[in-house]
Amino acid sequence: MENQAVIGVVGLAVMGENLALNLANHNFRTAVYNRTVSKVDDFISGRGAGKPVTGCRTIEEFTAALETPRKILLMVKAGAPVDACIAELLPHLQPGDIIMDGGNSFYLDTVRRERELKKQGILYLGVGISGGEEGALNGPSLMPGGNRDGWPAVEPILKTIAAQVDGVPCCEWVGPEGAGHFVKMVHNGIEYADMQLIAEAYGYMRDALKFNNEKIHRIFSNWSRGELAGYLLDITSDIFTFKDPESGALLLDKILDAPGQKGTGRWTSVAALETNTPVPTLTQAVFQRNLDADKELRIRGAQLLPGAAPDENDPMTADEIAEEISALESALYCSKLCAYAQGFALLKAAEREYGWPLNYGELALLWRGGCIIRARFLNDIKAAYDREPGLENLMFDEFFRDAVKRRQDGWRYAVAASALFGAAMPATASALGYYDSIRRADSPSNLIQAQRDYFGAHTFERKDRLRGEFFHNNWTH
Amino acid sequence: MENQAVIGVVGLAVMGENLALNLANHNFRTAVYNRTVSKVDDFISGRGAGKPVTGCRTIEEFTAALETPRKILLMVKAGAPVDACIAELLPHLQPGDIIMDGGNSFYLDTVRRERELKKQGILYLGVGISGGEEGALNGPSLMPGGNRDGWPAVEPILKTIAAQVDGVPCCEWVGPEGAGHFVKMVHNGIEYADMQLIAEAYGYMRDALKFNNEKIHRIFSNWSRGELAGYLLDITSDIFTFKDPESGALLLDKILDAPGQKGTGRWTSVAALETNTPVPTLTQAVFQRNLDADKELRIRGAQLLPGAAPDENDPMTADEIAEEISALESALYCSKLCAYAQGFALLKAAEREYGWPLNYGELALLWRGGCIIRARFLNDIKAAYDREPGLENLMFDEFFRDAVKRRQDGWRYAVAASALFGAAMPATASALGYYDSIRRADSPSNLIQAQRDYFGAHTFERKDRLRGEFFHNNWTH
Repeated sequence: MENQAVIGVVGLAVMGENLALNLANHNFRTAVYNRTVSKVDDFISGRGAGKPVTGCRTIEEFTAALETPRKILLMVKAGAPVDACIAELLPHLQPGDIIMDGGNSFYLDTVRRERELKKQGILYLGVGISGGEEGALNGPSLMPGGNRDGWPAVEPILKTIAAQVDGVPCCEWVGPEGAGHFVKMVHNGIEYADMQLIAEAYGYMRDALKFNNEKIHRIFSNWSRGELAGYLLDITSDIFTFKDPESGALLLDKILDAPGQKGTGRWTSVAALETNTPVPTLTQAVFQRNLDADKELRIRGAQLLPGAAPDENDPMTADEIAEEISALESALYCSKLCAYAQGFALLKAAEREYGWPLNYGELALLWRGGCIIRARFLNDIKAAYDREPGLENLMFDEFFRDAVKRRQDGWRYAVAASALFGAAMPATASALGYYDSIRRADSPSNLIQAQRDYFGAHTFERKDRLRGEFFHNNWTH
Repeated sequence: MENQAVIGVVGLAVMGENLALNLANHNFRTAVYNRTVSKVDDFISGRGAGKPVTGCRTIEEFTAALETPRKILLMVKAGAPVDACIAELLPHLQPGDIIMDGGNSFYLDTVRRERELKKQGILYLGVGISGGEEGALNGPSLMPGGNRDGWPAVEPILKTIAAQVDGVPCCEWVGPEGAGHFVKMVHNGIEYADMQLIAEAYGYMRDALKFNNEKIHRIFSNWSRGELAGYLLDITSDIFTFKDPESGALLLDKILDAPGQKGTGRWTSVAALETNTPVPTLTQAVFQRNLDADKELRIRGAQLLPGAAPDENDPMTADEIAEEISALESALYCSKLCAYAQGFALLKAAEREYGWPLNYGELALLWRGGCIIRARFLNDIKAAYDREPGLENLMFDEFFRDAVKRRQDGWRYAVAASALFGAAMPATASALGYYDSIRRADSPSNLIQAQRDYFGAHTFERKDRLRGEFFHNNWTH
C-alpha cells in the first residue's frame, strides 16, 4: 500500500495540472484523473514524467489509488460539472473521505454540497484558490473552508503547496460551510476594483494629461516601489515594456479596450446587495467592464455626445505635473483603501448573514502571497486588525485614517479634475463618495424618508426619539 | 346572474382596499375576499358601504360571486403568499379564468406562475402597479403583462381605473410572461435614483452651501415648475412646508436620516448585474440607502475621519449663489437623464435576455401619470422614442444631447465642487461617470485586458483585427 497516493486531483485543465505538479514537486504522490482520458496520458508522459504522479484512466482506478481517508481535489468547471463529478465519485468513497472543491464555485452551492455530503459521512471542503496558473504551480493563496473535520488531514499538504511569505504559508482555515468560496469571491470583487482603479489612473494620464507611454511606464514603475507596491502594479508596469512584434508599437496600444469577465465580480455585488452591504466601488468596477465591453456603443457615443469645454491648454510646469501625478497616486491609494474597506465589510456580513465568523487579519495574511491582489498594503490591514480585531470599518483604523488625512487633498483634486475634464474615473469617484458618506453624521436621507412616508406611508424614525419607534405624518393635508 | 361581480379582489390591505374602491367607484361590481374575514366585514360596513362591492367570507363564496371568465386581482404580499393564494383559488376556477397579480412580485416568479397556470388553462397576468395608496384609489399607473389571451377581457376595466393623462390611460399591454413585473421593477429602480439625486442636491445645499430651509424650499419649488417638474419634486417642495407640531421646527429636520427599502431597487441592480447591463447610478442609490441606514457607523465616522480642508469662507455674491443653484439644477437634470438611460437600457436587456420586446415610448407614456416617477420629462422620452423607436441609448437622442450640452458645465462643476468640499454626491458623480464613459471611444480597459491576459491567460482582442479573434501574449518572458 505504500505506493498509494496521498492526494488525488480530478480535472487536468491548466489549473488542475499545475496544482498536481505543485503537489508532486513537494513529493506528495498524486493520483490524477480526467474524464477525457487522453489528457491523463498526455500529462503522465509530458509535464508529469518522472514525478510522483499516478495516472488513472477510470474513477475506480482513481479512488483505489488513494490512501484512506481519501483526499480528493476537484479542479473542474464550477456549476453542474462539480455536482456530476461528486455523483461519479460517491459510490467509490467511504465515510471520512475528503472532497475539496478548488474551483471558483458559487458559495451557496458549496453550502448545499457540504450539507448534503455530511449526511453521507463525506467531509466536503470549498477551497478558494487564487494566483492563476503561475500561482497554482509555484504557490497559490489558499482559502479553505467547509467541514472542519476534514481540515487536519489536508492542512499539512495545503500549507506546503501554498505561497509562503516571511515563512508563513498563505493558507489558513477560513470558516464553515461556504466560507472558503465566499472569501475567494470577495477577493475577486476586490481584484476587480483594484484593476479598475489602476485603469482609471492610466486613462487620466493618457487622455487628460496626454502623457506618453514612456512617461506612464515610469510613473507606474515608481508607484510600484512605494506604498502601493504589489503584484498588480508590478505587472502593470511590466506591461508597458512589451512591443507588438508586428508593428513595433506598444502592444498595449493594440489591445482592444473591451474587457471580459467571468462572473465572480458580479457575484460579489449580488451578495452585497442581498446582504444590504454597500460596495459601490466594487460594483462600479463590474459595471465599468460591462460598459467598456460595448465598444460599438462608445464609438457612436464619441461621435454624438459633447464633452467638456476645452481648457486653454497652457503647458503645465514641471511642478504642476508633479502635483498631478502625486494627486493621482493619492487617489489610487485612498480609493484602493475604500475598496478594501467595502470588501472587508462584506466579509463581516457573512458572519451576520450566515454565521461564519471570519478572522479578518488572518485573511489579509492569506492574500499577502500567491494571489492577484497581493500587496504590501495587506500587511497594514493585518496590523489594523491586530490593533483592533473588532474594527468596525477598515477606514476607522488609525494608520489608515492618517494615511487618508495626508492624501485626501490629492484624491479630491483628482476626482474634481476628472469631472471637469471629462475623463471618467467612476470607481475613484465612488470611493470618495463612500468616504464622505461614512464620515457624515447627518446624511440627506431624512428627505428620502419623508418622501417615502409621503407617497407610501412607509413611516420614519425621529432624531429626537429612540430607534425602533416609527411615525407617520399626514402629508396630504 | 346579473348581480354577479365583474371582478374580484383578494387581499384587503391598504392597496387592495383602495383598488377595490377605485373599481367600485367606476361602477364595476367588485367581489372582495380576505383571509382574515373581519377585514371583509370592516370594509363592507366601512369604506365600501353603499358601493357596488360584494363581501365574501370564503373562497367558494368569492369564486361563485364572479361572472365567468373570472377576473381576479391578487393584492397579497409578494412571495409565498401569492403561491398560497393561487393554490387556494385553483380548485374553484375553470379554464379561461384570469388571475392578475398586482403585487410587487419578483418577475421570475411571475414567469414561473404564468407558465404553470397556462398548463391548466388559467390566464395569468403580472400587473405592475405604481402610485402608492393614493394612486390605487384615484388612478394608478398599470403595467400589465403575462398571458396575452387574458388581456382583452380585463383591458377595459384596467384602462378605466388607471390614471388618465391628456385623455390617455396610463395602462397598456407591456409584454409576455414576467414583462409587467419587470417593467415595474425597473420603474422602482429609477425611482430610487430619482430620490437619491434629489437628496444629494438637498444635502449639498444644506451642508456645503449652508442654505436655510426656507431658501432650499424656494429652490425646489422653482425647480418643480421648470423642466424637472414632476411628482417627486412637488412632494419634495411640499415637505418643506410641514412643521413638527411638538417643537415647531421643520418636521424634516426631525426625521431620522436612516432610510428603509423594500427590495425592488435591489432586484433592479441584481437583474442588471445578471444581464451585464451597467446601471451604476441606480445601484449607487440602493447602496447609499444601505450606507445611510447605518447611522451609528456614520456618527463614529464623523468623529474619526478627517474631512476636506476648510475653504477661506468668503461670503458668496448673489451671482455666485445663482450660479451654484443653476449648476445643481443642471446636475440634477443630467444625472436624472443618465438614470433613465440606464433604466431603459435594462428594459432593452429584457428583450435580449427573455425575448420580451418592449415598446419604450409606450412605457414612458404609462409613467406619465399615477406613478411616483411621473414627470414632464417622460413626454420628452416618449418623443425621443417616437423620433427613433430603435434608439440605442436615451442619451443619443438629439433633444437630450442638446439638453446635456447646455447643462454639462454646471453638472461638472457640481460634481467637482462636491468632491472638493466633501459633501458626497455619489449618484450624481456616477451619472457623470456614465456619461463620460459612453462618449469615450477609447476606454482605458485595454490595460485591464492586458492584466487579465498576464495573470490568467484570458486572451484579448486587438484594435487592428476583427472582433472575435483572440490573442495571448507570453508576458512572463
